Amino acid sequence: MTRGEPMAKPFSRLAIVGLGLIGSSLARAAKKAGAADKVVAIDASADVRARVEALGIADEVTGDVASGVLNADFIILCVPVMANAAIAAAMAPNLARGAIVSDVGSVKGCVVKDVGPHLRPDIHFVPAHPVAGTEHSGPDAGFAELFVNRWAILTPPEGTDEAATQRVRSFWEAIGANVEVMTPEHHDLVLAITSHVPHLIAYNIVGTAADMEEVTQGEVIKFSAGGFRDFTRIAASDPTMWRDVFLTNKEAVLEMLGRFNEDLAALQRAIRWGDGEALFNLFTRTRAIRRSIIDMGQETAAPNFGRTPEPLK
Amino acid sequence: MTRGEPMAKPFSRLAIVGLGLIGSSLARAAKKAGAADKVVAIDASADVRARVEALGIADEVTGDVASGVLNADFIILCVPVMANAAIAAAMAPNLARGAIVSDVGSVKGCVVKDVGPHLRPDIHFVPAHPVAGTEHSGPDAGFAELFVNRWAILTPPEGTDEAATQRVRSFWEAIGANVEVMTPEHHDLVLAITSHVPHLIAYNIVGTAADMEEVTQGEVIKFSAGGFRDFTRIAASDPTMWRDVFLTNKEAVLEMLGRFNEDLAALQRAIRWGDGEALFNLFTRTRAIRRSIIDMGQETAAPNFGRTPEPLK
Repeated sequence: MTRGEPMAKPFSRLAIVGLGLIGSSLARAAKKAGAADKVVAIDASADVRARVEALGIADEVTGDVASGVLNADFIILCVPVMANAAIAAAMAPNLARGAIVSDVGSVKGCVVKDVGPHLRPDIHFVPAHPVAGTEHSGPDAGFAELFVNRWAILTPPEGTDEAATQRVRSFWEAIGANVEVMTPEHHDLVLAITSHVPHLIAYNIVGTAADMEEVTQGEVIKFSAGGFRDFTRIAASDPTMWRDVFLTNKEAVLEMLGRFNEDLAALQRAIRWGDGEALFNLFTRTRAIRRSIIDMGQETAAPNFGRTPEPLK
Repeated sequence: MTRGEPMAKPFSRLAIVGLGLIGSSLARAAKKAGAADKVVAIDASADVRARVEALGIADEVTGDVASGVLNADFIILCVPVMANAAIAAAMAPNLARGAIVSDVGSVKGCVVKDVGPHLRPDIHFVPAHPVAGTEHSGPDAGFAELFVNRWAILTPPEGTDEAATQRVRSFWEAIGANVEVMTPEHHDLVLAITSHVPHLIAYNIVGTAADMEEVTQGEVIKFSAGGFRDFTRIAASDPTMWRDVFLTNKEAVLEMLGRFNEDLAALQRAIRWGDGEALFNLFTRTRAIRRSIIDMGQETAAPNFGRTPEPLK
């Protein structure tokens, strides 16, 4: 199925485990797009459950994963990746025959390893990762449009039922996403450079700036419009989720970080030796990449991300 | 004078040298706020002069800096910092008695060193740096509101006439900026961490991602919403301007980069050894910094910098 074709039969009962930013956005989007008849929200936190009830974004709300997945034909795990194994073990005995299990984790190798072994042969397992989000967390931060024109990457293990993969693809397309299929290994490498290392260096520069003695924190904050404030957005992302990403995608992150460090050492040397040409050449080359991202519809062309200037009185 | 008080007497003739993003924004802002009676635009590029004429943002337009500054009571150099010395030498003989010379460079130590010696004792020299901008360049990219609620840092050398500093402060306040005064040395250290090193690592990660073999450039672009695209904004800034920044603020940039690298090595080690607690602690601490920047009015609170999601059809 390609995008634009009519949606395949919706799922009759979608169980979402974990109603944070992504899970609660999925609940909203699935209802709005008619991609699921019923949405069951499962969350271990009473506070989160209360918010989900108040927001009215699910048909049923429960704290018990084992009973919550009963009769569901589609189950999506939306928790920090290291929490997947325990949830898979708890829900496995109660999964309906032929149900499809998926997730939204930012690391896919570990999900295949942690969840796969718990599932019976009649259960279809199609891991997924929507490359979308904001720096905010929790059920109140979610919104139905989060996945529109973003990419959802599916990483079905070898031998996965093709029809199950198609239904998951169709679900993501129904809520506005573009879908690509790749191996978990390749996914983890691609995301290490497009997402994980960028987060790591953003967290790092914000930490470095906070620890200065010669420059006060007040100065860092005041003069952040010089570039620093851009980094604070992704450095405000969910700490548990990101801890788990770095612990589970260690090899690819360390490999990509090694390249980043090599390149940075070369730049550092160019500065020390006053090699203006090397600097100018890099700075010219990088401009074109942003242009391509904007042309591909993955970024706004508005200056400053479209932050609106205040009026001049 | 503090903000909100009536504006001091406007300058009668403001000469702006270099009509890029900043210079052209200053021309627009000065006219709009009534901070100068006449604006003279001076630019060596015929293309830029033609655009400035077409945009109608200056009262006079010339390519000749020596004649352009005649009778101006306020001259602002808005060129890459390494171009300042030659311009200062060219204009110096024609400066009106008692004129105030300023600039907008991102590095202040070199401006004091490069421009100061060319100026006669009767000329007042008040270097300035508005911490504001976008990733776009050229006269078409400018707008009058660019400096509203941003900080302009003044670094008058010791012995500068207090009244001249006050007039420059009053000018920036009239066009919406907040003003702070500090030494050039402290400025260069503060900006190294809040602006120069952030730009350097943004340029670097974009370069690293562009050079991958295992991950195609198409994949980097497609999946850039995972964090990478944020970095491409400042990595799309003007190459000449930024080359000059790194060549002229070498010591402070290398010092801050050293700290960044130390901290990154510690993070790298935490990942290698699976120290989730160290990661979690840093990722929690950095969240608070963004909050402060938003509370100080230097950043939007809207998720994803306010990038608007497309509708879910």
